[in-house]
Amino acid sequence: MTTPVVPTGYGYGRVFPTRWNDNDVYGHVNNTIHYAAMDTTITSWLIEVAGLQTGGEHALAVVVSSGCTYRESVSFPDTLVIGLRAGRIGSTSVTWELGIYRESDGLLVATGQFVHVFIGPESRRPVLIPHAVREAIEHDLVVAA
Amino acid sequence: MTTPVVPTGYGYGRVFPTRWNDNDVYGHVNNTIHYAAMDTTITSWLIEVAGLQTGGEHALAVVVSSGCTYRESVSFPDTLVIGLRAGRIGSTSVTWELGIYRESDGLLVATGQFVHVFIGPESRRPVLIPHAVREAIEHDLVVAA
Amino acid sequence: MTTPVVPTGYGYGRVFPTRWNDNDVYGHVNNTIHYAAMDTTITSWLIEVAGLQTGGEHALAVVVSSGCTYRESVSFPDTLVIGLRAGRIGSTSVTWELGIYRESDGLLVATGQFVHVFIGPESRRPVLIPHAVREAIEHDLVVAA
Amino acid sequence: MTTPVVPTGYGYGRVFPTRWNDNDVYGHVNNTIHYAAMDTTITSWLIEVAGLQTGGEHALAVVVSSGCTYRESVSFPDTLVIGLRAGRIGSTSVTWELGIYRESDGLLVATGQFVHVFIGPESRRPVLIPHAVREAIEHDLVVAA
Repeated sequence: MTTPVVPTGYGYGRVFPTRWNDNDVYGHVNNTIHYAAMDTTITSWLIEVAGLQTGGEHALAVVVSSGCTYRESVSFPDTLVIGLRAGRIGSTSVTWELGIYRESDGLLVATGQFVHVFIGPESRRPVLIPHAVREAIEHDLVVAA
Repeated sequence: MTTPVVPTGYGYGRVFPTRWNDNDVYGHVNNTIHYAAMDTTITSWLIEVAGLQTGGEHALAVVVSSGCTYRESVSFPDTLVIGLRAGRIGSTSVTWELGIYRESDGLLVATGQFVHVFIGPESRRPVLIPHAVREAIEHDLVVAA
Repeated sequence: MTTPVVPTGYGYGRVFPTRWNDNDVYGHVNNTIHYAAMDTTITSWLIEVAGLQTGGEHALAVVVSSGCTYRESVSFPDTLVIGLRAGRIGSTSVTWELGIYRESDGLLVATGQFVHVFIGPESRRPVLIPHAVREAIEHDLVVAA
Repeated sequence: MTTPVVPTGYGYGRVFPTRWNDNDVYGHVNNTIHYAAMDTTITSWLIEVAGLQTGGEHALAVVVSSGCTYRESVSFPDTLVIGLRAGRIGSTSVTWELGIYRESDGLLVATGQFVHVFIGPESRRPVLIPHAVREAIEHDLVVAA
């Protein structure tokens, strides 16, 4: 059973093929690559789906914490599928919850979370989550437990 | 016009999505990523298609030179398509020729080449290209100019 | 005030220069690089100081979880200094605690933790922490709070 | 005999420690890392020594080609030393020549070259090498054969 592009329990998904140099000496995808996969998925959703504007006067999304729990090893040429949903949504920050699966057989490889705070480009102080982004999160990424 | 999975003039192709952290300060995919794309494509072909065995008594494919000519910038979330064909085939080495395209519109982004020498795992000296690999190269990757 | 090679409160330290392509579009070292810095520091200590053997019949150290809290942004060409100490030491696992500093001025950039479990190379089941590694941890990396 | 920070025959040098995840499945620093080392060394020299300004109205240095010849394998935790000198200097472009050495024993690991063209930030067309950069190149990086 292959993993659906949007894994069950998530509101968005993205396919993430591994690369030859993702494997480390042990022949497994190195633990740092899981963060590249999660970071790419969140940023992809923010830019391509939620229409986050970057540069100029727009608020920036800054990572304040991240974490990952590893369950199974994977190896190039495995392709991963990353599921994304929203956990806690504050006024200025969002906690993202992610699931990392192997595409070929649906194996749950790892789970993780990121916290982004939105800040003003000049003030570097927390600002409200941009309205369009909040609406997109609430519409697409809030998944009943 | 999107790029076909096997670009015209090549014998094999592989889709290579970019990642958020492939972009550098200038907002473009950093020049080192093109090598990860080419290395991944060659290794993928060797392992998945030509059945190259790794470890134990098997010959190793070692990179002795590589190069890239950059024509256009690309940026995450662009997806690339990498075309692969064989150039010069010696008794112990192969010159791979690669074309890097943007999937969405067929833009030629870069061209490159790698030279692999096959060596014995113990002797570390050049050995003949494994028979099955040579046959696969001649069958799949030799493309009329 | 520059950061000492072994930051205060840690038992081991390693200098980690940033690279041009560590910076992302925002001009800051991407959040995944902090994990490469922590992973490199732990592995460096295990191999160079504690004499961890790899390959063959030796136990493997496998990452089961990791996390990072980001306090300040840094940018290439900043050099980082990574401090390492042991937190909880179980019979088959270790929690590593790390501090990431900017070398030039002692700025605390981030804190993180990794949990490694030692497993048998064949059984893939948890095994006791190798004796020499446990002694080295207790000798070098246990720091009074 | 360790490698001097500025290797013989070069005008500038930079120490480049390897990272755990630079090693690939074969236990050697992956061939793409040599490009990260060369790119970092050139950019470091341009920004820190030659005072290249980035952003705004300033000319951009864009890579148009790169290449590497690999002579010896290295492995984490080896530290590399990268030597930089100028080859051909045109009106709008520079060819950089680089040597990659192992610090511990002076082993020549690889040689490479990059070609940068300077372009206008708006026009994206070639412009003259900025005067201060050209002077710094001629002063520091032209080495008699």
